[in-house]
Amino acid sequence: MPRKQDDVYGDHISHRFNDELTELKSRFLEMGGMVETQIERAIQSLVDGDSQVADEVRANDRTVDRMEMDLDEEAILIIARRQPAARDLRLVISVIKMVADLERVGDEAKKIAKMAIKLIEEGQAPRGYVEIRHIASHVQGMLHDALDAFARLDSEQALRIMKADKQVDEEYQAAARALLTFMMEDTRNISRCMSVMWVLRALERVGDHACNIAENVIFMVKGEDVRHTSMEEAERVVGG
Amino acid sequence: MPRKQDDVYGDHISHRFNDELTELKSRFLEMGGMVETQIERAIQSLVDGDSQVADEVRANDRTVDRMEMDLDEEAILIIARRQPAARDLRLVISVIKMVADLERVGDEAKKIAKMAIKLIEEGQAPRGYVEIRHIASHVQGMLHDALDAFARLDSEQALRIMKADKQVDEEYQAAARALLTFMMEDTRNISRCMSVMWVLRALERVGDHACNIAENVIFMVKGEDVRHTSMEEAERVVGG
Repeated sequence: MPRKQDDVYGDHISHRFNDELTELKSRFLEMGGMVETQIERAIQSLVDGDSQVADEVRANDRTVDRMEMDLDEEAILIIARRQPAARDLRLVISVIKMVADLERVGDEAKKIAKMAIKLIEEGQAPRGYVEIRHIASHVQGMLHDALDAFARLDSEQALRIMKADKQVDEEYQAAARALLTFMMEDTRNISRCMSVMWVLRALERVGDHACNIAENVIFMVKGEDVRHTSMEEAERVVGG
Repeated sequence: MPRKQDDVYGDHISHRFNDELTELKSRFLEMGGMVETQIERAIQSLVDGDSQVADEVRANDRTVDRMEMDLDEEAILIIARRQPAARDLRLVISVIKMVADLERVGDEAKKIAKMAIKLIEEGQAPRGYVEIRHIASHVQGMLHDALDAFARLDSEQALRIMKADKQVDEEYQAAARALLTFMMEDTRNISRCMSVMWVLRALERVGDHACNIAENVIFMVKGEDVRHTSMEEAERVVGG
């Protein structure tokens, strides 16, 4: 009987543990959704010249910060209480790391909203909106796919995001060069173009964070750290 | 007798565990020292116009990346093997987070070195070096103090770093405004001033990372999360 009871007790514990992990995952995805909306609305406020939306984005950043702190606390409690091992431990540690990435994506949304307000006050920038829209849609897709790869623990999708990040870096470089040329043509463009430059930079950083999330997904699934490795090595890890 | 043996065994385990924590701390500080040197030499390469030093900084970033991956792995192994609780767990989790900050400081050093090479090729920038030296010395001090606060688990020093970061942000804003004005005066300055602007931005980010480390030190010592809180609240946590 004691043995039997132990089993029941063991099952019960492991059941609760699984519930906690599921809850942690779903709260992480909820924070991801919030952050996606923040980026989307920040870009919208910029393109539409809508300072009210920009103000809302700035105000909502507090909610993102709160989510970061709550999720962090929850993850540390799970480690302390459940002492997870192997794949479960990798999941919890990765959530702690990825939460920091999401919080920074939130910060980038706030910066974009701030630049939107500045541009609305100064009069819209004459150039760069096409590039912003293009890069924004690219990194928004990456962020969405990274969260999706996490939800489905899909390391192959994660690998595709790592590849997409190289392309965003190139697009950012090209857009920054074009903007620099435009600034040189007429000094009256400089201040507004600088604001556009900061927006492009913020978007490029969002791509980096999506890439960090993707690398964590591969770590969770495969147990190997593919940061700072070549794309060939990352392919080997995911394929193997 | 079995009880006695248990104690000996327990002591032995706990002794090894303490050794591992000490080793983790000292390796973190070693990475911190490496990253401090990277920032110092990147600034030196820029101010002296020494592209060889800049090349070395860029090459050494691989060592920083390697340290990040090794330390991360070690920290996760400690959690899996020793199942630390309370203060020990906070230490290990904080190391995992702070290692990411150090790696990013390393990235900023690499960016500064890249800008140094660009400026050497284009001819040094006419303005902004005074500001770079000033902000660099400020954030280098913050980084050093943050690592020191970690080594001595000194939450009061950590609090001073959080306060210093506000000042760096103001210095950065003032320098960026001055540079923008200078760009407007003569379009020939634009490209070089942009490089200086990226350096200032990188330094401002280093200050942010030093601040993150300081917040983690307070979390380790006090068990409270002071991110995203007011300075008054952080003071209460440290003082209480």
